[in-house]
Order: sequence, then structure tokens, then C-alpha cells
Amino acid sequence: MQITILGGGGFLGQKLARRLATDAALDGRPITGLTLFDLQAPARPNAPFPVRALGGDVADPAQVAAAIPPGTDVVVHLAAVVSAQAEADFDLGMRVNLQGTLAVLAACRALPKAPRVVFTSSVASFGGGQDARLEDDARQLPGNSYGAQKAIGELLLQDASRKGFLDAVSLRLPTVIIRPGRPNKAASSFVSAILREPLLGLETPLPVPEEFAVWICSPRRAVEWFLHAMAMNTASLGLDRGISPPGRSATVGKMLSALETVAGPAARRLVKPAPDPAIEAIVGSWPGSFTAERARKLLGFSEQESLEEIVQAFIEDDLTATKAERSL
Amino acid sequence: MQITILGGGGFLGQKLARRLATDAALDGRPITGLTLFDLQAPARPNAPFPVRALGGDVADPAQVAAAIPPGTDVVVHLAAVVSAQAEADFDLGMRVNLQGTLAVLAACRALPKAPRVVFTSSVASFGGGQDARLEDDARQLPGNSYGAQKAIGELLLQDASRKGFLDAVSLRLPTVIIRPGRPNKAASSFVSAILREPLLGLETPLPVPEEFAVWICSPRRAVEWFLHAMAMNTASLGLDRGISPPGRSATVGKMLSALETVAGPAARRLVKPAPDPAIEAIVGSWPGSFTAERARKLLGFSEQESLEEIVQAFIEDDLTATKAERSL
Repeated sequence: MQITILGGGGFLGQKLARRLATDAALDGRPITGLTLFDLQAPARPNAPFPVRALGGDVADPAQVAAAIPPGTDVVVHLAAVVSAQAEADFDLGMRVNLQGTLAVLAACRALPKAPRVVFTSSVASFGGGQDARLEDDARQLPGNSYGAQKAIGELLLQDASRKGFLDAVSLRLPTVIIRPGRPNKAASSFVSAILREPLLGLETPLPVPEEFAVWICSPRRAVEWFLHAMAMNTASLGLDRGISPPGRSATVGKMLSALETVAGPAARRLVKPAPDPAIEAIVGSWPGSFTAERARKLLGFSEQESLEEIVQAFIEDDLTATKAERSL
Repeated sequence: MQITILGGGGFLGQKLARRLATDAALDGRPITGLTLFDLQAPARPNAPFPVRALGGDVADPAQVAAAIPPGTDVVVHLAAVVSAQAEADFDLGMRVNLQGTLAVLAACRALPKAPRVVFTSSVASFGGGQDARLEDDARQLPGNSYGAQKAIGELLLQDASRKGFLDAVSLRLPTVIIRPGRPNKAASSFVSAILREPLLGLETPLPVPEEFAVWICSPRRAVEWFLHAMAMNTASLGLDRGISPPGRSATVGKMLSALETVAGPAARRLVKPAPDPAIEAIVGSWPGSFTAERARKLLGFSEQESLEEIVQAFIEDDLTATKAERSL
């Protein structure tokens, strides 16, 4: 089984690559090769199969085609310009998030056998806001360019699946916490920062009120969902390739309580209220909750673990590396 | 007021152009210039203002920019590859329906003042099928590439409106009957043909059962909706620029009864049952009805007239020209 991860240098791409290297198989089939593609050639995990690391532009059809050679069985498409950056630089977002997905479509369509494509869509493709609890058939009416580009990607891949060019599963990822490393340009960056920075002993601003609710998942859960989406039987999906996986709706206050439970009150005191209307305007338009019934009851996606387990998992999986990366 | 009609050579574009020439004003403001753009330079109506007719490729950004010069107040974007053709030739549909709309976005964004853009989306952007009666917030899950490209166009223009690059109104046009001229490559072509061809004294096949329901509107009503969308206040639309106007749900049997009422039983006998599963597969996935409450109750779109009035309108507006065009 040949696998390509586009955006393979990002933190989820790297976690997935390491997991594939460890498992050496997907759904019982041995992995025979892995290609990691990102702006810069990604780090390669130690693996019992060949791993290629390619640096390139996901909006360049020839470079994407080189990353998806004949024989590719699964493409995981994580390459994206994130929310606040796509909002600040419309052209960059359109190029990477729209033309990039078109390049992926073209490369997959050129293969002799239609590959599975796991596309990371996003909760940001929906409107509805804080009080919404969206059903699986909710309309995508995004209030930000990143979300619009993700909703468009879903439509492109849904139609390409219907045509038999590829076999897509689009996962609308919740806000993934706790991201390792540094704050990034996602509008939701603070949701990780308010947990990660205190665990590093650092102060961090809280741009929204504690009652603010976010639909979240953990990196561990996201990787499990990717593995499930890479191997699942798509016959039951029919036309509808968009899946809202079973994340968890949590207020910022509940997240901070979990931080306090795991790391003590001193950690929580490092989070300093600092209202930021620009951040709240973007993330405040995203729905606070989804029913996720299709993913949970019909499609076999696993449940999100507790907030305390999420904090503990970061300590186990990412704290040491993050400290080293940031020289702390 | 400067107006551009992309797809200005098509039958709706020509009807709209002639109406603008007659009115010489839009919403009380005098029209100072009209550009008609299509694959071949369209016919120009006699008008009390200058009319440019340009031939070109809607997927070519430079040609589209030439059709939307600085000072343009309103762009009506009707240029499209229709449903059955976009299904048969995926690349052509993507080029015209997706890259074309991207070129329109870029041209409008380059103007000093954001123009109104009236985009013809389609009932084909929805799934749901015969028994569906869709609410205004229904999800677009298209079962055909044309519909996917139209849903993507709505997302692009909705986001561009939010960004202030243009000011879009996307009208999901019902199946427009009675189209003049000849049958075309739209999967819904038969819905016009079963009324038009008998009025021309010609036999015509009926590819679906008489119980088959279609969401329809007349060319007269479509032109009224365009005029309304070109001048309406969009402040009340908010993020949501997609509008399902108040068409009419009618079975093929009711249409044939209206034909018989207006043109007699001999006309109806010219319609010959000839089941066509390929046609039924495409149009059978389109919803048979919409509530259209937002357009009707909040946004001031006028109601569709009766089936008998639609048949009569074709006789008044288009029968003579269609006979001449087809040498009948």
C-alpha cells in the first residue's frame, strides 16, 4: 500500500507519518511506501518501508503529480493556509486552498486506479456561531475565506468521487488541541496556547470570554480518524463525502479547569484575559457544537476523549519536544 | 449606469438586453452603457445608449476584464456550460463554470468600486430528488458536475461579497420554460421541448413519466427576477447571497394539460413517451419543489405565473422567431 501525505511536514502530518511507520500496515495491508510533501521537504520517520520527502508547491500540478505517483492507494491532503492567514492574504488562501485542491484532483484523476483521498475540511466551513448545534445535513455558509475554500474543496472532491476520479472522505476537523510548537496564524491558535503555554511555564493571552465554546478534538483522535478514513468502506457514504467526526464541545473555562486539574492552579493563573475582537469575530462565527451522529453511529468514528486526557496526552506526547524546539 | 451581461448571446441574456434597451433605466437610474459578452459577439438590441458586443472566452481573465471595464455597476453572469454537457465533458465544465467564475471574481475585484454581480446558480446545485420540498437553508449536495460548479460559484461569490470585492446575488434558477430555438444539451431540455415542439407542429419525445415534477419558471419571470436582483438592496442578505426565487412545482402531466388548454388536444398528442434513464438520472436528482420563503416574503421577488400563461407567453414572445430560426 502506497500512501502520500500532502502537508506532511505539519504537526498532524508528522504524527500520522510516525504512526504509519510504527504500524507498518493500514487496515491489515502492509505499507510499501510513503511520500511526505510540504513546502520544505518534511522530516522522515524511521520506517520499515521507503519514505520519500519532497519539498514543493501544492498549487503546482506537476509537483503534486510527482508526489502522487502511479500506484498510490491513499492520499491524505492536509496542505492548507490556515484561517487567519487566508483571511489576511486572500490570494494566498485561494492559491493553496483552492488551486492546491484542484491540483490534487487532477493528479489523482491521472492515476490508473482511483485513490482514496482523505481531505481535511474544517468546522470553519460552517456558520452558526456559539449557540449552534449543527446536524449532519447543515448547510455550509462560511464566514471566513478559509472556510469557504474548504467547503469548495468538499464540493470538488464529492463530485470527483461521484465521477470515479478518486474516492474522497472529507473530515471537518474540529479545532485541534493541544498543538505543539509555537502559536500559529490560525484564528483558533489561542485554544491550544491557553493550555500549552502554561504547561511550558509561560503566560498567554485569552482573547475570548471563559464562556466561549469551541468544538475541539485532540491530535491523537485526529490521527485515529485519519486512519479510519484512509481505510473505511466508502460505499455507505453515497454522494455525501463530508463527515463531521465526533469531537467535543467545550468552553474555554472547562478547558482551563482541566488544565488546573492536571497541572495545578499556578498553571491556570498564567492565562491572562486579553479580549481580541478580531479573533473573536472569526472563531465566534464557527459553530460551538455538532451532533456528529452519522460519523458516530453509522460510520464507526471513535469518540473524543476527555479534556483532562487531552492535557495529559500533550504532556506525554509533545511537551518535551516543544520545550526543546523553543529552547525552554 | 454601466451594465455587463456575460453569456449575453444566450436566450435569457438576449431577452434581458432587449428589456434594458427598452427600459433605458434600472431602478430609476438611466443606463449609460451595456456590454454583451459571449463566445461569439452577441446580437445588439436597438438602444438609446451605447451597446458593445464582445466575443471571447469567459475563462480568460484578460478577456473577462475587458468586458467589465472600470465604471461597471452591474455584472449579470449567465455564461455557463449546461448540465448534460458539463456531465459529458468534465474539463469543459470546470473551465467555463469554475475558472470562468474565478475570472469574473478577479475582474470585479480589480474595479475601483465593487459592482453588483447577479449570478445564475441553479436548482441542479441541490440534491433531494422528486419528493423533496427544500427550505431556504437546505444544504447543496449536487448529484451532477454542473450543480457542483454552481454551488462552488455561490461560495466564491458569497465570500467575495463578504470581503467587499463585489456585491453578489446568486439566483438558483428553476428550469426555465419555454426555451425558444432548438433543443440544447441541458438535461432539462425536454421540459421546454414537450411544450415548444408541439406548438411548432412537431413530435417530441417525453423521457420521463407524466408524474415527474419539475421546479420551473418562465423566461419572463427570470428577466423580472434579474432586474430585481440587479437593483435590490443587499444589506438584508447578510452573508447568505444564495436565493431560491419563487418558481412553481409542476408535473409534466400538468404542463401537457396546460398545452392542451391553450393549443388543443392535437398539440398534446405530438408528445410521445420515450423513457430515457440517462436524462431521468440527472434531472431526477434535482428537487421537485422549494419553499422559496425568503425570496417571496422578505426579498420582494415576484411570483411565477400559471402554466397556461407560460404557454401563452411563448406564443406571444418567441413562437414567430423560433419558427423563422428553424425555417418552419
